[in-house]
Amino acid sequence: LPAAYDELRGLLREAATLRSLGTLAAWDQETMMPPRAGAFRAEELALVSRLAHERFTHPRVGELLAACESDAGLLADSAESANLRGIRRDYERATRLPPGLVSEISRTSSLALEVWRQARGMSDFPSFRPWLDRLVALNRDKASCLGVPEGGELYDALLEDFEPGMTAARLEAVFAPLRRELAPLIAKAATSREPESVSVPVELQREFNLHVAKQVGFEFEAGRLDVSTHPFTEGLGPGDTRITTRYREDGFTDALSSTLHEVGHALYEQGLPKQERLGQPLGEPASLGLHESQSRLWENQVGRSRAFWTWALGEARRVCGEAVRSLTVEQIHRDVNVVRPGLIRIEADETTYNLHVMFRFDIERRMLRGDLPVAEVPSAWNARMAADLGLAVPDDRRGCLQDIHWAAGAIGYFPTYTLGNLYAAQLWETLTAEIGDLEAQLERGEFSGLVAWLRRNIHAHGRRHTAEELCRSLTGRPLDPQALISYLSRKHA
Amino acid sequence: LPAAYDELRGLLREAATLRSLGTLAAWDQETMMPPRAGAFRAEELALVSRLAHERFTHPRVGELLAACESDAGLLADSAESANLRGIRRDYERATRLPPGLVSEISRTSSLALEVWRQARGMSDFPSFRPWLDRLVALNRDKASCLGVPEGGELYDALLEDFEPGMTAARLEAVFAPLRRELAPLIAKAATSREPESVSVPVELQREFNLHVAKQVGFEFEAGRLDVSTHPFTEGLGPGDTRITTRYREDGFTDALSSTLHEVGHALYEQGLPKQERLGQPLGEPASLGLHESQSRLWENQVGRSRAFWTWALGEARRVCGEAVRSLTVEQIHRDVNVVRPGLIRIEADETTYNLHVMFRFDIERRMLRGDLPVAEVPSAWNARMAADLGLAVPDDRRGCLQDIHWAAGAIGYFPTYTLGNLYAAQLWETLTAEIGDLEAQLERGEFSGLVAWLRRNIHAHGRRHTAEELCRSLTGRPLDPQALISYLSRKHA
Repeated sequence: LPAAYDELRGLLREAATLRSLGTLAAWDQETMMPPRAGAFRAEELALVSRLAHERFTHPRVGELLAACESDAGLLADSAESANLRGIRRDYERATRLPPGLVSEISRTSSLALEVWRQARGMSDFPSFRPWLDRLVALNRDKASCLGVPEGGELYDALLEDFEPGMTAARLEAVFAPLRRELAPLIAKAATSREPESVSVPVELQREFNLHVAKQVGFEFEAGRLDVSTHPFTEGLGPGDTRITTRYREDGFTDALSSTLHEVGHALYEQGLPKQERLGQPLGEPASLGLHESQSRLWENQVGRSRAFWTWALGEARRVCGEAVRSLTVEQIHRDVNVVRPGLIRIEADETTYNLHVMFRFDIERRMLRGDLPVAEVPSAWNARMAADLGLAVPDDRRGCLQDIHWAAGAIGYFPTYTLGNLYAAQLWETLTAEIGDLEAQLERGEFSGLVAWLRRNIHAHGRRHTAEELCRSLTGRPLDPQALISYLSRKHA
Repeated sequence: LPAAYDELRGLLREAATLRSLGTLAAWDQETMMPPRAGAFRAEELALVSRLAHERFTHPRVGELLAACESDAGLLADSAESANLRGIRRDYERATRLPPGLVSEISRTSSLALEVWRQARGMSDFPSFRPWLDRLVALNRDKASCLGVPEGGELYDALLEDFEPGMTAARLEAVFAPLRRELAPLIAKAATSREPESVSVPVELQREFNLHVAKQVGFEFEAGRLDVSTHPFTEGLGPGDTRITTRYREDGFTDALSSTLHEVGHALYEQGLPKQERLGQPLGEPASLGLHESQSRLWENQVGRSRAFWTWALGEARRVCGEAVRSLTVEQIHRDVNVVRPGLIRIEADETTYNLHVMFRFDIERRMLRGDLPVAEVPSAWNARMAADLGLAVPDDRRGCLQDIHWAAGAIGYFPTYTLGNLYAAQLWETLTAEIGDLEAQLERGEFSGLVAWLRRNIHAHGRRHTAEELCRSLTGRPLDPQALISYLSRKHA
């Protein structure tokens, strides 16, 4: 490989190493950091992100990249030429943004987050409104700098940060039939019945969750499982992927769902070729949507199946003893698959969840276009909650102020949640056909066949392909809502 | 304040912020990091230390510093002019070292550490010998680059890293009478009696140590107490000081000693004006010796006193209940003050500890001078163990291979341990006289008077003065071994 490529990869690795220190600092902030360290932690995070950006956008990176792009040997290697295309794309996007705009967005969103926290607590949308106005305007500037693809719209430029290759028009085409089909399905399956509740001491749940995570394939030699208010996964670098979950005495199956979700993310992180490819597209996840497909697949397709619980309940009895004695596979299976429309996205069931996501996509797209004045967001939100989920929103705290994303300056993030569900269902169809007796394997607590399939077909490729390209090459067809619709229809039949 | 000073402080703060990310990474490595992350963690640490060094030695720092040094207003302010002198000293030292030498020392010592771990395990000094040879040679080069003060020796240039303002000749003058007086004192007090042993469940010890640390004044809002193999303190930045300790069921008083030692270090870190002075001399500890005086003072002068245990045993009974029921203040006081010569420095009692340190200083000073060939280190070590502590060294594992310092490339570090004991004893004489009824306060578990004295007289000054200047201004005399000798003599009378 040419010397220019060596040097280029070295610079990218340094930028990624700086970012990884930021990831460690962010993980520590959520799990370990004492309260009074918050102000300085913000300083540390801002510094590493600035230094990483400076390194990545340095003109030397551009020179080296150009040299590599004219190297016939590299271009003939399909992996390396895909890697170079990815670097070019990232470099163009990073250098198109004026540093002043980047820091203005960062400064505004960190202030807006504080205002949002207050506003949410008091259900006071008007106090947050000017901040959201400003963030939408800044996102519009950002999208203009990044450049709108031909025939596309501003939203596409933002979406590209989260879901490379995806467009708003394509999302609309995929979401429309999903939304149409979900309505009667939910109407039929919805219930207001509360699931059975057992009380399991947190210490026993912890042991059970650690055991399941290990059995599923999370490598504890290369990771940790801790507790935090909101469960998350952070890939800190080669050999270091950390997940968190949360326990409540009366939330036995909820905790396991969270753990399986994060384990799914973590398997992706642990399966990326980071040691060799740190800082390069081929060492990074393909998209947030594909990442979410990995978490959803374990949380839903595996974790809400009868087969999985046939094994898992036995393990739970062994670890938690008396506390779970009254549970049966039938009952758990029924409870974890309940459809119950609610106001809060993060508490939503697998089926109604997508409605929450799709109307957020519509609202943020219209905000960005300027079709929906920010002042009208609450009424638009409440109208969609009524139309899509049949619920009246009592206050903005449980309405348009519930999510952190907009306050953090992220527009274009929401749709990746439903993309995750769509990809998970579509990949599941293919992999169950290819593996053959997966259900029997799950009943025996054998996960290695499934993990190996995901490693080989998805994780190992990094960002060599877009999520939809990978989906097409694995399943034989582009992203198609029918897989998720069929999966949910069968479930609620 | 002039704009140049603002910019200078900004650059120093950035360098310190990078170092603080390294400190977080180092803390995490000892307490949280999964095993397979080790290789990448080394990459992260090397990168931040290189970037921090690059920032600090940037010519812009030199320009700004020169501008500030010709600013009459700054020079007229005694705090800011002391700060500028400290920055000048650090800048000169940092820029005198060729980057090639810095990275060669870092590379060699990281390899030497691995060889040393192996060699220690097998008591195989010959395999470590060439590495120690190389490290001594590199330290000689380093000392030459840094420059030997007039009338001084190479060792002084290295010592300056750990104990600004101190010299080998001065150490020799202070250590000689200490060594002379300790010999008869130890001969008289030495015993081979084992202390009484109780078994206290680790969970109860943990609760007790957390309670004592809090009562003493460690601010948990701005810190943490965790467990690690070797206890340590890390100041991660403003509002974030983390300590560790270790528990054994049969090590009830040992664990508390460790905790008090680290709390002493932590109070210094928490008392430095880091928020305003991060990266500046006035925000940093004055020296390792003074730092160690803060830990030793709490571990020894407080933690081995009858007054302290009068309070602490009551608390232990409340927290640990039955497990400590058989202990009495008399018996603990006797046991924690036992003098028992042993082979291992880190297990040594308060009195014999200094002999371990002083002969290490003699040996490393002679190695650096070239008076003692590295091949003869084991025999020199063993001769001093026999002469000073009356013990035969059975193998190098328990002899000259026991400590990590030389393998890590640190020559000039050891004497700071005994400097800590000396400063602690001398400061203790002054502060007990000034506070008045400190003993009665300790008996009641009141530590705020002592903490306030240390904060005001030591912690708040950072590195405004050298340790010995501060000692002189507080106690009215220069460093003087008589205080430690009297303290130990009274104890063993």
